[in-house]
Amino acid sequence: MKLRQLSESELIAAIRKDFPGLKRSILVNIGDDASVLKTDKGFLIVTKDLLVEGTHFRREFGPAYLLGRKSLAVNLSDVAAMGGRPLYCLLGLGLPPSIPPSWVEDFMAGIKSLCRQEGIFLVGGDLSRSKIIIISITVIGQAKKFITRSGAKPGDTIWISGYPGLASAGLHFLKRKKGLAKNKKAKTGSINVLIKAFLDPVAQIRLGTWLAQRDLATAMIDTSDGLSIDLYHICEESKVGAEIDLTKIPIHPALRANFHDPWPFILNGGEDYQLLFTVSPSKRKRVVQASHRFRLYEIGEIREDRHLWVVDQGHRRLLKPAGFVHFKA
Amino acid sequence: MKLRQLSESELIAAIRKDFPGLKRSILVNIGDDASVLKTDKGFLIVTKDLLVEGTHFRREFGPAYLLGRKSLAVNLSDVAAMGGRPLYCLLGLGLPPSIPPSWVEDFMAGIKSLCRQEGIFLVGGDLSRSKIIIISITVIGQAKKFITRSGAKPGDTIWISGYPGLASAGLHFLKRKKGLAKNKKAKTGSINVLIKAFLDPVAQIRLGTWLAQRDLATAMIDTSDGLSIDLYHICEESKVGAEIDLTKIPIHPALRANFHDPWPFILNGGEDYQLLFTVSPSKRKRVVQASHRFRLYEIGEIREDRHLWVVDQGHRRLLKPAGFVHFKA
Repeated sequence: MKLRQLSESELIAAIRKDFPGLKRSILVNIGDDASVLKTDKGFLIVTKDLLVEGTHFRREFGPAYLLGRKSLAVNLSDVAAMGGRPLYCLLGLGLPPSIPPSWVEDFMAGIKSLCRQEGIFLVGGDLSRSKIIIISITVIGQAKKFITRSGAKPGDTIWISGYPGLASAGLHFLKRKKGLAKNKKAKTGSINVLIKAFLDPVAQIRLGTWLAQRDLATAMIDTSDGLSIDLYHICEESKVGAEIDLTKIPIHPALRANFHDPWPFILNGGEDYQLLFTVSPSKRKRVVQASHRFRLYEIGEIREDRHLWVVDQGHRRLLKPAGFVHFKA
Repeated sequence: MKLRQLSESELIAAIRKDFPGLKRSILVNIGDDASVLKTDKGFLIVTKDLLVEGTHFRREFGPAYLLGRKSLAVNLSDVAAMGGRPLYCLLGLGLPPSIPPSWVEDFMAGIKSLCRQEGIFLVGGDLSRSKIIIISITVIGQAKKFITRSGAKPGDTIWISGYPGLASAGLHFLKRKKGLAKNKKAKTGSINVLIKAFLDPVAQIRLGTWLAQRDLATAMIDTSDGLSIDLYHICEESKVGAEIDLTKIPIHPALRANFHDPWPFILNGGEDYQLLFTVSPSKRKRVVQASHRFRLYEIGEIREDRHLWVVDQGHRRLLKPAGFVHFKA
């Protein structure tokens, strides 16, 4: 039996079983966006993500500067998905000897720009040789209140920040070497919007902390794997089902302009790093009021039966959770 | 210009310049064994190390179980070198699809055994595909008092815990596929001592916290790179020099038995993960008293002139700091 026959979730389940969070100070363990540790004043939120050349990115996809920003952003997003405020990061970098120093400088400039933008401090790390580029970032944040994946209740409404599917559509064009060209054709502008969504995602830190501080969300996750699979994660952890209404999901003009059928990207495309969260009926009004400011879309409702449903113009069908989790090299 | 022309220390210096620790709560920044963050009650010690297949280990060197233990141990050692008590770890794992699940199970069993042994909790992490095995561990610890590399003063004595050079000598035999054989020859026993030092190093946590809590060390580092280069790190950060006396350095019988000249291993061999620290004259007596219990060896003295000296049977010469930092694939 090889690893390809053992899914990441099975492996996580096995690890989880072996490492129960016995200590009271560990509140959220393996399997959520980040770990939560109790401190004297509130909570420490810790997360780490590995970005591996050939698995998560190719060097030729974009400038090192944006790869630096993205490497940090995806970790900030994990903290945001818990409702935490990221404060510090540590960077582990594995680099082949053939990498030019200018690449490393550009990469670090990208890290630096996002650190400045979000008020994060790089406090340490590790450099080593490697045959392929490896980026391992740890982010430490804090929170007075935090949101897990496991609090959704039947009757809660389901919300998403921003447009789903842009990043995976951008990846689609990057793989085909379209976009970012100098001689722009008619569609290049809209393609570049998609590519930018993939190369330079924005962690929804302000929204995450806003929801957590006001106790507005019952469950939350970032859409790193794809809308359907991330919704499935919430449902699994909360032991509920969900129904989403396709007519309520916002479709970005750049998706409409470039794809006859944008739904595979919208439902299953990963790496958007938007926040997907659920809101109890009593809190719904406050979220509706803030929906314009934060660009929030109400797309469905949590249900008791443990299935994922989509409603499309009156027709109701089961939704198979699937995600193109990462770019497969 | 390629990365091979830009050393790790130059890169760290460049990163350090770009990311000054402006916030008061960051006390020790990039360049020490771990980062120190101020909390309401004491300090948070955070470290991360990347272990890359082909750079830090080869699969055939030893069982996955020991690789799991070592991956965690080297990070625990970084926290120990600051005088901190490690509490939590996060694991990032990049795995090729061809890795058998039994390998992953053995590796996790190794992590688990050391977690149990040292009272550490695995609180989170990340799994992804990769062409080579990548192990990225973050350890979070705490301390009421901590020890940096920068506090050594002229007149302080220099101490090391345990025997230097064993791990690199073990690696020497692993590369030549000697030792760990089933039909043991006369020397195999002593070779296996060396190999075990490389494959299963022990983080000196109790010694580190003992020294920190009693304010006994002025500067401290773990010998991950090698005695001479790690002493050089202390001297550079403390802006001092040092003189070590070769007759005071303990030589392990297994080194004597297998090498005509064990000094390259003793002075420059890395990966021992012993603690190297300096003690002010007023505290020396207490360390002497504890030297038997902790197996501590006084090997020299900090000097004002900024050079590294060795004294060997009355002769004094400059010591060139050099380390076989890691196994080069």
